[in-house]
Amino acid sequence: MVSFDTIRATGDVEVDVGIRIYALAARLFPICRSITGDGVRETLQVLGQHIDLTQYEVPTGTQVLDWTVPQEWNTRDAYIKDPSGRKVLDFADNNLHVLGYSAAVRQTMPLSELKSHIHTLPEQPDLIPYRTSYYSEQWGLCMAHNELLQLEEGEYEVLIDSEKRDGHLTYGEYVHKGQSERDVLLSAHICHPSLANDNCSGLALLACLAKALRARKTRYNYRFLFAPGTIGALTWLAGNEDKIPRIDHGLIVSCVGDGGGPNYKRSRRGNSLIDQAMQYVLNADGRQGKISDFSPYGYDERQYCSPGFNLPVGLFQRSAFGTFPEYHTSADNLDFISPEHLGSSYRMIMDAIDILEMNWTPINLFPKGEPQLGRRGLYSALGGDKSAGETAMGYLWVLNLADGNHTLLDIAQKSHMSFRDIARAAQLLLANGLLAEAPEQDQAGEASSSGQA
Amino acid sequence: MVSFDTIRATGDVEVDVGIRIYALAARLFPICRSITGDGVRETLQVLGQHIDLTQYEVPTGTQVLDWTVPQEWNTRDAYIKDPSGRKVLDFADNNLHVLGYSAAVRQTMPLSELKSHIHTLPEQPDLIPYRTSYYSEQWGLCMAHNELLQLEEGEYEVLIDSEKRDGHLTYGEYVHKGQSERDVLLSAHICHPSLANDNCSGLALLACLAKALRARKTRYNYRFLFAPGTIGALTWLAGNEDKIPRIDHGLIVSCVGDGGGPNYKRSRRGNSLIDQAMQYVLNADGRQGKISDFSPYGYDERQYCSPGFNLPVGLFQRSAFGTFPEYHTSADNLDFISPEHLGSSYRMIMDAIDILEMNWTPINLFPKGEPQLGRRGLYSALGGDKSAGETAMGYLWVLNLADGNHTLLDIAQKSHMSFRDIARAAQLLLANGLLAEAPEQDQAGEASSSGQA
Amino acid sequence: MVSFDTIRATGDVEVDVGIRIYALAARLFPICRSITGDGVRETLQVLGQHIDLTQYEVPTGTQVLDWTVPQEWNTRDAYIKDPSGRKVLDFADNNLHVLGYSAAVRQTMPLSELKSHIHTLPEQPDLIPYRTSYYSEQWGLCMAHNELLQLEEGEYEVLIDSEKRDGHLTYGEYVHKGQSERDVLLSAHICHPSLANDNCSGLALLACLAKALRARKTRYNYRFLFAPGTIGALTWLAGNEDKIPRIDHGLIVSCVGDGGGPNYKRSRRGNSLIDQAMQYVLNADGRQGKISDFSPYGYDERQYCSPGFNLPVGLFQRSAFGTFPEYHTSADNLDFISPEHLGSSYRMIMDAIDILEMNWTPINLFPKGEPQLGRRGLYSALGGDKSAGETAMGYLWVLNLADGNHTLLDIAQKSHMSFRDIARAAQLLLANGLLAEAPEQDQAGEASSSGQA
Repeated sequence: MVSFDTIRATGDVEVDVGIRIYALAARLFPICRSITGDGVRETLQVLGQHIDLTQYEVPTGTQVLDWTVPQEWNTRDAYIKDPSGRKVLDFADNNLHVLGYSAAVRQTMPLSELKSHIHTLPEQPDLIPYRTSYYSEQWGLCMAHNELLQLEEGEYEVLIDSEKRDGHLTYGEYVHKGQSERDVLLSAHICHPSLANDNCSGLALLACLAKALRARKTRYNYRFLFAPGTIGALTWLAGNEDKIPRIDHGLIVSCVGDGGGPNYKRSRRGNSLIDQAMQYVLNADGRQGKISDFSPYGYDERQYCSPGFNLPVGLFQRSAFGTFPEYHTSADNLDFISPEHLGSSYRMIMDAIDILEMNWTPINLFPKGEPQLGRRGLYSALGGDKSAGETAMGYLWVLNLADGNHTLLDIAQKSHMSFRDIARAAQLLLANGLLAEAPEQDQAGEASSSGQA
Repeated sequence: MVSFDTIRATGDVEVDVGIRIYALAARLFPICRSITGDGVRETLQVLGQHIDLTQYEVPTGTQVLDWTVPQEWNTRDAYIKDPSGRKVLDFADNNLHVLGYSAAVRQTMPLSELKSHIHTLPEQPDLIPYRTSYYSEQWGLCMAHNELLQLEEGEYEVLIDSEKRDGHLTYGEYVHKGQSERDVLLSAHICHPSLANDNCSGLALLACLAKALRARKTRYNYRFLFAPGTIGALTWLAGNEDKIPRIDHGLIVSCVGDGGGPNYKRSRRGNSLIDQAMQYVLNADGRQGKISDFSPYGYDERQYCSPGFNLPVGLFQRSAFGTFPEYHTSADNLDFISPEHLGSSYRMIMDAIDILEMNWTPINLFPKGEPQLGRRGLYSALGGDKSAGETAMGYLWVLNLADGNHTLLDIAQKSHMSFRDIARAAQLLLANGLLAEAPEQDQAGEASSSGQA
Repeated sequence: MVSFDTIRATGDVEVDVGIRIYALAARLFPICRSITGDGVRETLQVLGQHIDLTQYEVPTGTQVLDWTVPQEWNTRDAYIKDPSGRKVLDFADNNLHVLGYSAAVRQTMPLSELKSHIHTLPEQPDLIPYRTSYYSEQWGLCMAHNELLQLEEGEYEVLIDSEKRDGHLTYGEYVHKGQSERDVLLSAHICHPSLANDNCSGLALLACLAKALRARKTRYNYRFLFAPGTIGALTWLAGNEDKIPRIDHGLIVSCVGDGGGPNYKRSRRGNSLIDQAMQYVLNADGRQGKISDFSPYGYDERQYCSPGFNLPVGLFQRSAFGTFPEYHTSADNLDFISPEHLGSSYRMIMDAIDILEMNWTPINLFPKGEPQLGRRGLYSALGGDKSAGETAMGYLWVLNLADGNHTLLDIAQKSHMSFRDIARAAQLLLANGLLAEAPEQDQAGEASSSGQA
């Protein structure tokens, strides 16, 4: 396996970052994670080699909103031995073999009884399914259906050497400090065992993105959250009520390593700036991304977008969860994701961040008639040329819509020009004293004290 | 002709009710109705055998809004005898032969003069047209064009033994009492003579529906109105100003016995709950109904939706009036309507009533994050299964949109789930203490004291 | 060339007016115009033979918003003589040969040096381009690329006998007085030299339209503006701030003599009455006009729709500027425009004016139920006839939507009936005492004191 720190740069930023993300995802892949336990800690320790993570430990039994932090679960070993004593299933081969949060068992039983505890996928008979039972006590194992069919009658020895005990729920957080008091939330779930796309890809991508942001002065704080799905998000929300009103934008990141999509699911608000920015990015540069309305099934946007919080948090994916055959099976492995796709996913998220960072609301200081651009060297000297006007279109659009009701992204969308061209035109107009910056509005629509950088 | 009360049930509710409606329509068909007169009374008397109708008699000359109740019109006999004394037109054969509200005449005249009083349909030469002249004094007869062509020159004896005199306008009303003080108006016009679809079908369907509601506890009062078109609706509106603000929903029912459509014409408001409910019903269960915007031509929705009332009253039909060749001709007879179509029309109206009855606005009592459904037995124990989430989608949609701004019907539409599934999920969430019911809003948008049943 | 005043009428108004407009455009075509100078004055003098124009002279150096009125520019002569002394370019042949606002020059130079001052169109090698340099000091000439290619090496004598000096910017204004204090602005740019479509067509059309309005009592004042593009509009806006709030509707008129389009570009407001009226007109009578959203490039709508004014002013054209190959070349000559197209353009603008004049907001005085139209002779006596209702549809639509929230144009659009039919129905209902007129709202949405005529 390639070492993350010895990868040679190719010179192409997107390719390079894709290779680095892949290497980190590959490093995370073998670890046996669940919603609690040492696998989460080991994952955070690997991520912590790249970014300055803070690790939080929340005790079992802690009330988090309507939920309670469960007992911590760890598994040391698990196997099935056939009547001849041969291991026909071994946790050491693949950590999907054990039902998440399975009870412990050490027993000998006939095949018929064993079968009732074994989960398979008859329609994908060579794949091991991923199954969990967090809140209902049972023991279980998962295996390929074809392997199950080959088992002969007889007495089988089953071992699941797992332990549920009072302990902690563990999650990691990293904050890149920006110039304002407003936050962008970026979150990836850390609770899935050896599933590469879902969600080693998201964990690795966000870690590399956090690392890249360190070199950059930003307007926003970027809060990176690596926490178990559902219970982790609920735990964070329950413990950080003071920070919630500061979240202006958010993105859940999962399944970002395959070549599908890209897909973006809007926040419940439906037209927050992150929704507009992702829609813009997923349709720029020839990408034909798919934009879906919010629905309450999926990843942790379910919690952030519950009606009591209703945060502007969307979901970014390549293939949408549940729609690709590898989903929640052993086929979601390191062959299913690629540096190329991880790199392009990274690019799209970074493009959206660029918009969040560079977006502002201009006010035309010469709103009556057009200001004379030519005198300021902003306009072609020669009139009458059909193409002359086109080069000045960015200026004209920005000036015309700089009434305090349009952000640069709004102007890009109305003009069908690129956000970069509009942002560049606005910057030049600002430098020439033709624009001022409107006081920033936070998501709730009230003026905040944070200025654009 | 089948007797209404001796029909054998087939066991299929929709088929059974269709047979019953057809039998009642057939019983009403031969009666000679107009906007006033004994035909209306006889029709109400037949309907009164099934529901406890109140019959109202409003005297000629009563001012009703901008109109005046006209004289009462009754016809005893009418015929044309050819020069040989043979009856070539006889009121006893078909009551369409007499122009509605025709003046009386008893006269002998040459064919050429007679012709100026005879209405035919040259493009449908075998059919008798339906024609009226309520407010302009004239006498006239209607016959098949081909029959007219066969008349030879000569002196014809014409009799119209009709009478216009001060009397009454008659209409019937039946109210099914519900638990609230809010009303649903269901209305069918009673003024057309022997036209089966337009509107024996509507009269019979509403009578059977009223009968069925007796067995049901409802939230709303259901006010059934059997009144002559235009002048009857105006008379009711003029005399019931106190009841008008109580009408939350309404439906005009006509032409519900043929196999066309279904068609729904929205109320003038365009997006009242009855509009939403009918749109939902006409597109559920594979029906590909046609929804039209309000227009001021049609049946009594013209009056209820006049700008001074602007009630949430739509029009339900199978084939839309004026669009089918049988419309307003002798071909709109008992062969043109069928039990099957009457039954399915009944089903659609009852489905809409179910929505009116079962719709409410939920409030999530645990709006921060998702409440833990599994602990309450509302969620599949086994995680990771692709289909597991689907069964819980109803809960998730209701909880997510239970912010007081979405009715169950809104949620069904946003989720693309069936209203029944959403209503069932909401009921279970309510029973589990996860939801409360928002105070009901009346159509005017103000909170009313009527609670959901 | 046909004299404007001796044209024989054909009897067809649209044809006649087209011929008159063409004749006037042809009279204006040869004049060498620019944004200032004697060409503008001569143009206004010709227009002044038809309408009672007021001519304004604004001194060089006057500050107009962010701009300054430039020096006045006039050209007496210009040519290029080849080494043999033959004139290979002569201003007398075509005034496009001189770069607008060119500096003066009298010099002999080698062909290679000369070429750097000559503008051509290599892709349209037989056409002379139209080029200007108002605000950047340079000298230049324009010629057909093929003619340039034929020039042999050698010394050329170049003369541009032009003069820039302190003088005036000239524009003309004509106001047709109406009954209210509200204005309609109609404007055509006067600054282009011999370009027939852009904009002799607009100047001539507006002059003829102004002449026609003299015979008509109008509700609005019609303010006709003949001013140089950009600097002329800015000059008018700077000097007439008191009149700006009175402008309820406006139209920039250019390129109205060719057979393309018709095209309408909405005002920045997007849904002002002029936008609605032009959209209606461009889709009535089988015209399949193209409606575009506002963009800040084009003609003087750029200034009127700048965010500090944001006036309801749109742009009407046949072929859209910049999209036809003749645009800004010597091919935009009198062969490119025709009486037929000028006549139909005139018709469309006059149709929109008719809507502005005839549009009003009716209030139903009998809003509860339908008033009895038959009693007032407004309704067919014979009921039941399928077509009977159709003739009354105009009445029904107007009455139903006469709630104070719908103008006649709104009603025409909702009913899919023609504006004329709706207006006629409303007039009859008004005459019968069934309607009142709502107090007029100005564009800002506040009631104004101006009543409908």
